Amino acid sequence: MKLLYPTSLRLDPSKLEGFSVDLQSYDVKTSIPEEHTDADILVTWANSSDNLKDANKRLTKLRWIQSLAAGPNDVLNAGFDPKKVSITTGSGLHDKTVAEHALGLLLVSARKFHLMRDYQNDGKWPGPLGGPQPDKEPGTFNTLEDANIVIWGFGNIAKMLAPYLTAIGANVTGVARQQGVRNGYEVYGEDKLAELLPKTDALVMILPGSDATKNALNAERLKLLPKHAWVVNVGRGTSIDEKALHSALTNGEIGGAALDVFETEPLPESSPLYKQKNCVVSPHAAGGRPRGAEALIAENLRLFLAKQELKNVL
Amino acid sequence: MKLLYPTSLRLDPSKLEGFSVDLQSYDVKTSIPEEHTDADILVTWANSSDNLKDANKRLTKLRWIQSLAAGPNDVLNAGFDPKKVSITTGSGLHDKTVAEHALGLLLVSARKFHLMRDYQNDGKWPGPLGGPQPDKEPGTFNTLEDANIVIWGFGNIAKMLAPYLTAIGANVTGVARQQGVRNGYEVYGEDKLAELLPKTDALVMILPGSDATKNALNAERLKLLPKHAWVVNVGRGTSIDEKALHSALTNGEIGGAALDVFETEPLPESSPLYKQKNCVVSPHAAGGRPRGAEALIAENLRLFLAKQELKNVL
Repeated sequence: MKLLYPTSLRLDPSKLEGFSVDLQSYDVKTSIPEEHTDADILVTWANSSDNLKDANKRLTKLRWIQSLAAGPNDVLNAGFDPKKVSITTGSGLHDKTVAEHALGLLLVSARKFHLMRDYQNDGKWPGPLGGPQPDKEPGTFNTLEDANIVIWGFGNIAKMLAPYLTAIGANVTGVARQQGVRNGYEVYGEDKLAELLPKTDALVMILPGSDATKNALNAERLKLLPKHAWVVNVGRGTSIDEKALHSALTNGEIGGAALDVFETEPLPESSPLYKQKNCVVSPHAAGGRPRGAEALIAENLRLFLAKQELKNVL
Repeated sequence: MKLLYPTSLRLDPSKLEGFSVDLQSYDVKTSIPEEHTDADILVTWANSSDNLKDANKRLTKLRWIQSLAAGPNDVLNAGFDPKKVSITTGSGLHDKTVAEHALGLLLVSARKFHLMRDYQNDGKWPGPLGGPQPDKEPGTFNTLEDANIVIWGFGNIAKMLAPYLTAIGANVTGVARQQGVRNGYEVYGEDKLAELLPKTDALVMILPGSDATKNALNAERLKLLPKHAWVVNVGRGTSIDEKALHSALTNGEIGGAALDVFETEPLPESSPLYKQKNCVVSPHAAGGRPRGAEALIAENLRLFLAKQELKNVL
C-alpha cells in the first residue's frame, strides 16, 4: 500500500512509520510522477488545481484522500467523487491558529493598532489614541475587559477562543443553531440574536460557508448592533452581506470590522472596503498552517488499515 | 477632613462613602477653587502641570496625594515633597490594561497586522501574508504557539500577561533582578540573558524607568537576539537604546519592534522609527485607564484615617 504526502508543509514522516505502508513525498504543484500513480492514499495541502485534476485522472487505485484543509473544496472541485474515494478533512488542525488570529483581530479592533499604523505612515505621533484615556465610557470598545463578545458559530475554534477572552475579562456568549451550554459557555439559538446584538461590543463570526449561512449577518441584523460595535469574521466571507456591511461602516452604524475572509478572495481591488478606515483587511491568514497533521494522518491510517470508520469524513 | 477627586476619569464617589470625609470633585486642568484649598487629600489623574504647581502652593493643609498613575512623576515634578506630603501611586491599577496591550502588540508582531494595513492602504490584497503558509520554519515568528517569549521585568504586569501567553501555547521565561519561580514561571537573573536571548522569538520589556534600567537593551544584547526576533516594549522607553534598536532594525539584525514607549514622548517627528516598516509605533496607550481606582482610594482612605501605613507609598 502506498501513501503520498505533500512537501507543501513540514511533515515529519517518521511520525507515520510503523504501518506496512510505503510513504512517498510529492510536489503539490506539478503532476504526480508516473511511478506513484499506483498510490492508495493521497494527503493534500495547498495543491494546485491542475495537480488535483491530473491526480483524479491518473491515480486510478486511489481509495482515500486526507485533506489537511478544514474544507477540502479544492479536492471536490477537481472532480473527486466522495462515493468512490473516501475524503477526510483537516478539521481540528486549524483551531488554535484561527483562534489566535481572531484574538489578534479583536485586539486590533479594541486597541486601534490599525489607526496607529496610519498615523505612523504619515510620520505623526498617534496622540489621540494614547496617554490618559477615558475608560468605562458607555458606547466605546477600547478593551476586551468587561466587553460583551458574542461568538456566532460555536464549534471547536470558538471553544479555543472563548477561554482566551474570558481570561482577559470579556463576557463571552455563543450563538449557534443548537443552543445549550458548551464548555461552560452559554450558547443561544439564532432566534436570540435580536436580543443579544444590541448589547454586543464585538461580534465574532466563525460560521462555515454554506447556503444556510449565506448573508447570515445582513443589513437588518447589522442595524441591531450598537454604533460602537465591531464585527470580526474568521469564518467564511459569504456569511456577511458585504454590501450591507460597507454601508453600515460608511454610515457609522457600527464601529468597525476586522475581516479575514471575504465574499470574493482575493478581495478585488475595486472593493470599497480597502479605503474604509474602520475596516481591517486580513488576507485569509487565520489558518493556513495545519498543526498536528501527522497525528491525524497516523490515526486515520490506523483506522483505514483496520477497515474502521475514518475520522473527519466529509 | 476633605478629599478632592478628579473629574478626569469616571470615578464613582459612592464607593468612597462611609468615612467622615467631605468628598469634592475638581477639574485637573484649571486651578483648584479657593473654597477647596483646605483639602487634606488630593487624588490626581492626568492633572496639568500648572494645576499641580498651583496646588503645591495653595493647598497648604495637604497631607496625602493619591496618584492614580503607576509612576507619579508629574506630582514630583510639581515640587511636592514626599517627606512632607505622603504620596501613593496607582501601582496595580494598570496591570490588566498594560498586559492586554502587550498581548496585542505581540499578536501584531507575529501576525503582521501592521504590514496588512500597509497593503490595505495601497489598495492591495496582502496576499503574501495569507493563504497556506509555511509553518514551524526555523527562524520565523508568525504565531505565539510554541514561541519562546522572554519577559524582562517580571512584576505584576508580567504575572498578568504570562498566563495569557501560556494559554495560547507560548513558552514563557522571565528575567528580573531577583531570580526564582514567580507564579509558576521560571524567572532568571540578568546574568542569564546571554544564554536566553539567542533562543528568544519575542522579548517583552516591562522594565520601570530608572538609572539602573537605562539602555538595558543595548547594541550588545540586541546582537544576541536571532534575526527573526521581535522586541516589544510596554515598560519605559529609556530601557532600550533607541539608536542601537534602529540600527538593528535597519540592518536586519532583529525581526522587528513593537513599541508603546520611547526615550522621548511624543516620539519626535524626526525619529527614523516612524519610517521603519518593521517597527510598530504605539503612543503610550497600554495603560492610561486606571481600573479599580475607587477600591484603592477607599482602602488607603481607611488606612489614612486609622493612621496606618498606606499602600503604594512612593
